[in-house]
Amino acid sequence: MAHIHNFSAGPSILPQEVFGQASKAVLSFENMGLSLLEVSHRSKEVVAMVDRTIALVKDLLDVPDGHAILFLQGGASMQFYMSALNFMKEGGKGGHIDTGVWSAKAIKEAKKIGTVVEVASSKDRSYSYIPKGFTVPSDLDFLHYTTNNTIYGTEFFETPKSPVPLLADMSSDIFSRKCSVADHALIYAGAQKNMGPAGVTLVIVKEELLGKTGRNLPSMLDYQVHIKGESMFNTPPVFPIYVSMLTLQWLKDKGGVAWAEQNNRAKAELFYNELDRNSLFTGTAAKEDRSRMNATFLLKDESLEADFSALLKAANISGLKGHRDVGGFRASMYNALPLESVMALVDVMHSFEQQKG
Amino acid sequence: MAHIHNFSAGPSILPQEVFGQASKAVLSFENMGLSLLEVSHRSKEVVAMVDRTIALVKDLLDVPDGHAILFLQGGASMQFYMSALNFMKEGGKGGHIDTGVWSAKAIKEAKKIGTVVEVASSKDRSYSYIPKGFTVPSDLDFLHYTTNNTIYGTEFFETPKSPVPLLADMSSDIFSRKCSVADHALIYAGAQKNMGPAGVTLVIVKEELLGKTGRNLPSMLDYQVHIKGESMFNTPPVFPIYVSMLTLQWLKDKGGVAWAEQNNRAKAELFYNELDRNSLFTGTAAKEDRSRMNATFLLKDESLEADFSALLKAANISGLKGHRDVGGFRASMYNALPLESVMALVDVMHSFEQQKG
Repeated sequence: MAHIHNFSAGPSILPQEVFGQASKAVLSFENMGLSLLEVSHRSKEVVAMVDRTIALVKDLLDVPDGHAILFLQGGASMQFYMSALNFMKEGGKGGHIDTGVWSAKAIKEAKKIGTVVEVASSKDRSYSYIPKGFTVPSDLDFLHYTTNNTIYGTEFFETPKSPVPLLADMSSDIFSRKCSVADHALIYAGAQKNMGPAGVTLVIVKEELLGKTGRNLPSMLDYQVHIKGESMFNTPPVFPIYVSMLTLQWLKDKGGVAWAEQNNRAKAELFYNELDRNSLFTGTAAKEDRSRMNATFLLKDESLEADFSALLKAANISGLKGHRDVGGFRASMYNALPLESVMALVDVMHSFEQQKG
Repeated sequence: MAHIHNFSAGPSILPQEVFGQASKAVLSFENMGLSLLEVSHRSKEVVAMVDRTIALVKDLLDVPDGHAILFLQGGASMQFYMSALNFMKEGGKGGHIDTGVWSAKAIKEAKKIGTVVEVASSKDRSYSYIPKGFTVPSDLDFLHYTTNNTIYGTEFFETPKSPVPLLADMSSDIFSRKCSVADHALIYAGAQKNMGPAGVTLVIVKEELLGKTGRNLPSMLDYQVHIKGESMFNTPPVFPIYVSMLTLQWLKDKGGVAWAEQNNRAKAELFYNELDRNSLFTGTAAKEDRSRMNATFLLKDESLEADFSALLKAANISGLKGHRDVGGFRASMYNALPLESVMALVDVMHSFEQQKG
């Protein structure tokens, strides 16, 4: 079968090598004579595997001591609620930066717990930019933001300055570029972009800030419970964690986050240069805030969409349909997407211009 | 490598055929030219796969119309809280039957929401039996029970009569024998025994009973939200659901739950007959309540444990160590465990008696 260029927004492309290793582990894991899918999560082999995954996260992101690393379930959607529940005091208030659909969902869930202050928003221009120059009130319990906005194609390239604990949803750009974990009280990320398959959520949380809300938390929504249980308070999603371990090991072998950032810059530059040069297309995000992970763009003449889609299909380019809120197209260029796939896309855009221009 | 007899309590043995198919899907799923781990959960192929899994659950358990079938994350541990949150009215109270560690955890989480009435308990005799002859007050919002107790080796073979909505944690015996879904308002089960690998939770809930608590629920903890989203309110754990689908298809091909029940009865009879005959061992559970899934037993002379364990290891029998709360041994005999594995275990018990008796 022809090689597919996988631009899916998530779940999304992972390294080919990872698929080979994961496929083997489904048949036989380590030297246990058993499938990874049928062994106890408390077996020494699985415990060692989870420990290895934690060590890789710590190494790749330079996680300082005092920040715990957890693998949970429920994705960012569960974290929208859980993060506020663990950081918003009884009668307190949380601050949020609203940069689109995912931020809005986090705000919605936090409002079920207490007062939400919208510190900044880019809603006025259809979330096409990242708010800047705002002031964060110092009486908030936290400031929450979404580092990369998959739907609107914008990304924070500078960490917001905050006098209160900073919480970040990094689902779609974690491991894609350097970020300062030390500046954050909490980072969470659904695995299914740069880290692994669907079914596991990475949480990195500064331990000394926990247990201060005055709330009696449900066990499964209490970071302290999971820290005490070393991510095994309940049965963890073993296989998704394993595939994450393989993906992070692949990243480390390639040169870590610095390698990923360099590579992602090159891919984004290649794509956006063509977007700006090509007379048929236009980008939707402010140039300085354009995401390196998700490039959102439109055909100036919408009636050409079907023709362009047909060319993409013929070139084995998959997953380029834009989100319904923005329309048009979206090229997701996560860590595992090779430069060659972006070259293939750029070639199609170029050919299309020659054909229609 | 020698074949291992996998008696692990969970995650636990799944059919060999399933491992082969799952391993292939990690390399290439359907005719997409992509790994199952890198495709969108909203692709028509994944949506069809999830629909197929729902259809298999409905068919195998004879789920009546009006009961929704969901695949969630967080295991039974999340359901301990979520079930009470969705069924306990503001100011109301929930009823629980306490049959051991897992029931006690459900009680602990429900108490964070409101009043819990302990309707019956077997704590007085170390959870070695299933309570009977109790009366369920009709002013409760629900009655919750654990159908099979993995740690204490007991199992409900009769559904409790209840004048109030009946909620069941069936994590460790679902699909192992006939059960009346229609008698239950809610059934939940972590997949990692008879259904699939760790990382997905089956929920079957009677829709008309939902939305009556007066609470403003977090989206991820609201069954109605997941029903509306058809288990895709957020990104579902695609691979664990797929392996569950394969396992349920295997069960259907074998003859469904009726086949499993017959097979599980035969395995349990073989094991318990040897246990009762053998002079070295003793069971921990009341005979009439002995679980067909998890047989808990002790050596009358504890000092022989190391010798017996060595014999088990030599016979490639794995996962027989008892839970720390009960000690001794536990033979977990889930659907996919072949009769031959129980025969191997019985042979070792017999040989051990001849050697030591």
